Amino acid sequence: MVRKEAMRMVSALFRAGNQGISASWSVGGTRLKSAMPEPSQPKDEDLHAKDGKVLHPHLLNENVVKTQYAVRGELYLRAEQLRKEGKEIIFTNVGNPHALGAKPLTFPRQVLALCAAPFLLDHPRVEEMFPADVIARAKKTLAAFKGGVGAYTDSRGNPMVREEVARFIEKRDGVSSNPDHIFLTDGASVAVRLCLNAMIRHERDAVLVPIPQYPLYSASIRLYGGTLVGYFLDERRGWGLSIEELRRSLAEAREEGKLVRGLVFINPGNPTGQCLSQENLKELIQFAYEERIVLMADEVYQENVYQDERPFVSAKKVMYDMGEPYRSHVELLSFHTVSKGTAGECGLRGGYVEMTNIHPGAIEEVYKCASINLSPNTMGQIALSCLVNPPKPGDPSYELYTKEKASELVSLRRRAHMVTDGFNSLEGVTCNFTEGAMYSFPQIKLPAKALEAAAAAGKAGDVFYCLKLLEATGISTVPGSGFGQEEGTFHLRTTILPREEVMTSFVEKFEKFHKDFMKQYS
Amino acid sequence: MVRKEAMRMVSALFRAGNQGISASWSVGGTRLKSAMPEPSQPKDEDLHAKDGKVLHPHLLNENVVKTQYAVRGELYLRAEQLRKEGKEIIFTNVGNPHALGAKPLTFPRQVLALCAAPFLLDHPRVEEMFPADVIARAKKTLAAFKGGVGAYTDSRGNPMVREEVARFIEKRDGVSSNPDHIFLTDGASVAVRLCLNAMIRHERDAVLVPIPQYPLYSASIRLYGGTLVGYFLDERRGWGLSIEELRRSLAEAREEGKLVRGLVFINPGNPTGQCLSQENLKELIQFAYEERIVLMADEVYQENVYQDERPFVSAKKVMYDMGEPYRSHVELLSFHTVSKGTAGECGLRGGYVEMTNIHPGAIEEVYKCASINLSPNTMGQIALSCLVNPPKPGDPSYELYTKEKASELVSLRRRAHMVTDGFNSLEGVTCNFTEGAMYSFPQIKLPAKALEAAAAAGKAGDVFYCLKLLEATGISTVPGSGFGQEEGTFHLRTTILPREEVMTSFVEKFEKFHKDFMKQYS
Repeated sequence: MVRKEAMRMVSALFRAGNQGISASWSVGGTRLKSAMPEPSQPKDEDLHAKDGKVLHPHLLNENVVKTQYAVRGELYLRAEQLRKEGKEIIFTNVGNPHALGAKPLTFPRQVLALCAAPFLLDHPRVEEMFPADVIARAKKTLAAFKGGVGAYTDSRGNPMVREEVARFIEKRDGVSSNPDHIFLTDGASVAVRLCLNAMIRHERDAVLVPIPQYPLYSASIRLYGGTLVGYFLDERRGWGLSIEELRRSLAEAREEGKLVRGLVFINPGNPTGQCLSQENLKELIQFAYEERIVLMADEVYQENVYQDERPFVSAKKVMYDMGEPYRSHVELLSFHTVSKGTAGECGLRGGYVEMTNIHPGAIEEVYKCASINLSPNTMGQIALSCLVNPPKPGDPSYELYTKEKASELVSLRRRAHMVTDGFNSLEGVTCNFTEGAMYSFPQIKLPAKALEAAAAAGKAGDVFYCLKLLEATGISTVPGSGFGQEEGTFHLRTTILPREEVMTSFVEKFEKFHKDFMKQYS
Repeated sequence: MVRKEAMRMVSALFRAGNQGISASWSVGGTRLKSAMPEPSQPKDEDLHAKDGKVLHPHLLNENVVKTQYAVRGELYLRAEQLRKEGKEIIFTNVGNPHALGAKPLTFPRQVLALCAAPFLLDHPRVEEMFPADVIARAKKTLAAFKGGVGAYTDSRGNPMVREEVARFIEKRDGVSSNPDHIFLTDGASVAVRLCLNAMIRHERDAVLVPIPQYPLYSASIRLYGGTLVGYFLDERRGWGLSIEELRRSLAEAREEGKLVRGLVFINPGNPTGQCLSQENLKELIQFAYEERIVLMADEVYQENVYQDERPFVSAKKVMYDMGEPYRSHVELLSFHTVSKGTAGECGLRGGYVEMTNIHPGAIEEVYKCASINLSPNTMGQIALSCLVNPPKPGDPSYELYTKEKASELVSLRRRAHMVTDGFNSLEGVTCNFTEGAMYSFPQIKLPAKALEAAAAAGKAGDVFYCLKLLEATGISTVPGSGFGQEEGTFHLRTTILPREEVMTSFVEKFEKFHKDFMKQYS
């Protein structure tokens, strides 16, 4: 009964509004705490508010109003305000490498430049400005994009790029891939949302999502009127994903009458940074098969791996290696992007979903929905083309491209260690190593006095801590409550993306703040 | 009572599914005909279909399944198939100028190239490849986009570009504009959908939409679970928009218990090409004020005007000129894009919405929803920056830029005449002149024998005609039923975008097909 109640409360967390009043509840035998919102009271039948407004915040779509999105929430808005007032802000609230000084890879940007300005190809100086393989690639790309980058493509994306993505997947996984089951989108978020929108019919339809999770999932599930069912990752075991916990969560949801249709997992993890083992993925696939649940594999950080024991392996490869009945029956949606990895091209908005074992009629429905926006942007598609079909050994650009990627990856690994070590050296802070992705998610043990001060300020403990951190150092993070965390624990998410040359000072700033904070509230 | 029934049927048209069975019904005293879909039967409680699929087309979100999108519908799919089989297709189904050979404007593409590859700015040859103002503009843009084009921007878009859009609006309308009320999006479609999603709460919430309409509106309103309420444009008066018809439509909707919250108008019109007079816009604004309805001004074709009597004037300008109470009270959402005009940069996906007299809390809600996708794409934002802040007299790029735009606009005007004249020269075809936008929407009087053949093939008459046209000539159009039309009338939409050098042969192909068709079915 405790667990049943717990389940209800976890769902409530992600169904609730965004007024920021805090409350607590229990889940899975443990206690959760999060920024608990006051439900808004839309006067459903009203056409306009007392002030005459039709588009009044109390008269909008309830699902819109109740959606929360922490990554660009209270902390971000305050950081933006401080920035406008002239304060230097270090935006580690979002995985946005270029904003912190990461340089773009040269090859894709050269290709993009020529595709944007194809008349440069006729310039007598073009060969002094661009390597031969870039010129050839731009010509090939422009031939495949009829009308160039200024024309709409098919709503699923350009056929040549979808073919390149399929070849990339085949090379990565050693199994076949069908370009007609690959949709290119304006970033992976759009792909995730297209799928969730088709999947969710009403409030009883539920999706299993890890806690902590990336708020794209809680926000989108809420926006489409479904129910998020959380399953806990185990912080004490390196944010491990346990099948027992999944079974517990599923059983409770079903007992509540929920129709669990999807299961999201993020590998490598966001915000938690763990890399799943092949064994763990097998269990997941078996679970999805037995329980008839669609797997949503968020694999956008597949290139960002900072340990050697568990290299990235895709859910699709594991599923195919398992043989029948899994390889022909488990419905799998796999997501990837140009925004992460060593390219970090967040601004170009290029991503894709590959749909495996999905009913052709369902693929048609997703196609129809994608077509309402006519076409994903072309530059993001071309960036994706470069990511999945990079220069080959012997090509003029090969050496530089390979060097740029390798040096960024090695640097990210060093930064993962610097951030983790920095956190673990602090009193009252524990932090699992960032095995992959771009984030560190330390737990902060807040002293009682700090919690009292937070309560007095009407803030959750982690929000209070993150705001103080922001005001003192300009470091913009996201409180753990935006991702979900166990009651009585407080976390924050920071990226590991400040450049190495400023990382020491970043860690020092954090340390100094933390020590001052602990002194003030001890 | 006839009208009440009529209203119900118009709503049904856009609520229905997409199986393509035809039916007819009456609206506003006239008769409508359209591709009428068989409603699908989702087994709501089922978790998976007999074949084991969770994502089965019968088990998806009902709103997704019932959404129709004609521009990329049956005709487009058949055209794509024929193209794959090697047939040359002239895609006039969608306003996609570059796909038919329109050249990009040089200035924005040069700026985009340097922003994509900022290292070119350090190249000793850069000044031989790019004019000085392009170089300066790229530097200014890169300084404003922290992290360059590879970084997420604010979810509303880059602040400098929003400021430039505000200055553009101020210059155009002579009234103030607030950049905080301007959101940049991946094309105007995304902006329209963000607003509709916030506006529509449930099925009773209704939006007035012109018939014929652009299917973005019917598709999105359906997808968000609202009700489309059609108001007819008057074909006999050049697709005129009459306030009496609006009042009739509103009254019927209210009688049915609908909560009419929004009113879409498209100026210049799509697919109908009419340009609204200032007087007409005044009436619209007064209507919106009196009835407390949010105006959604689709002004994406504002540059595409091919007559001199009614130059484009924005709804915002008219509203401000009307003075109080209108200028401070009418809730207005105005949309614009880089995809249309003389730039025609469809593939770059850059658009915006300006929100006038919208409650700050509602703007916050739209901001939150936009933030789930983190950021619109940067290249589309920069293209928009170039559109709203072009080279000035004296700048090295000014002359070429001005010439390129003027010659495209003059050519579009000539093509508007060629297409209209071509249609009107045909037996059984009548066509209003394309005063603006990019489309021609002729009415085709189909002979009885053709209608019998269509019925025998299980197709609506216009679908039958358009399919025959496609098979015979490779010309890909959209049947009128995708936009809505009066019963017993048949239309099609074609763009006026084939280049002038092929326009004569385009018109000839059409004429030959039409004569053969009429001969065959007379």
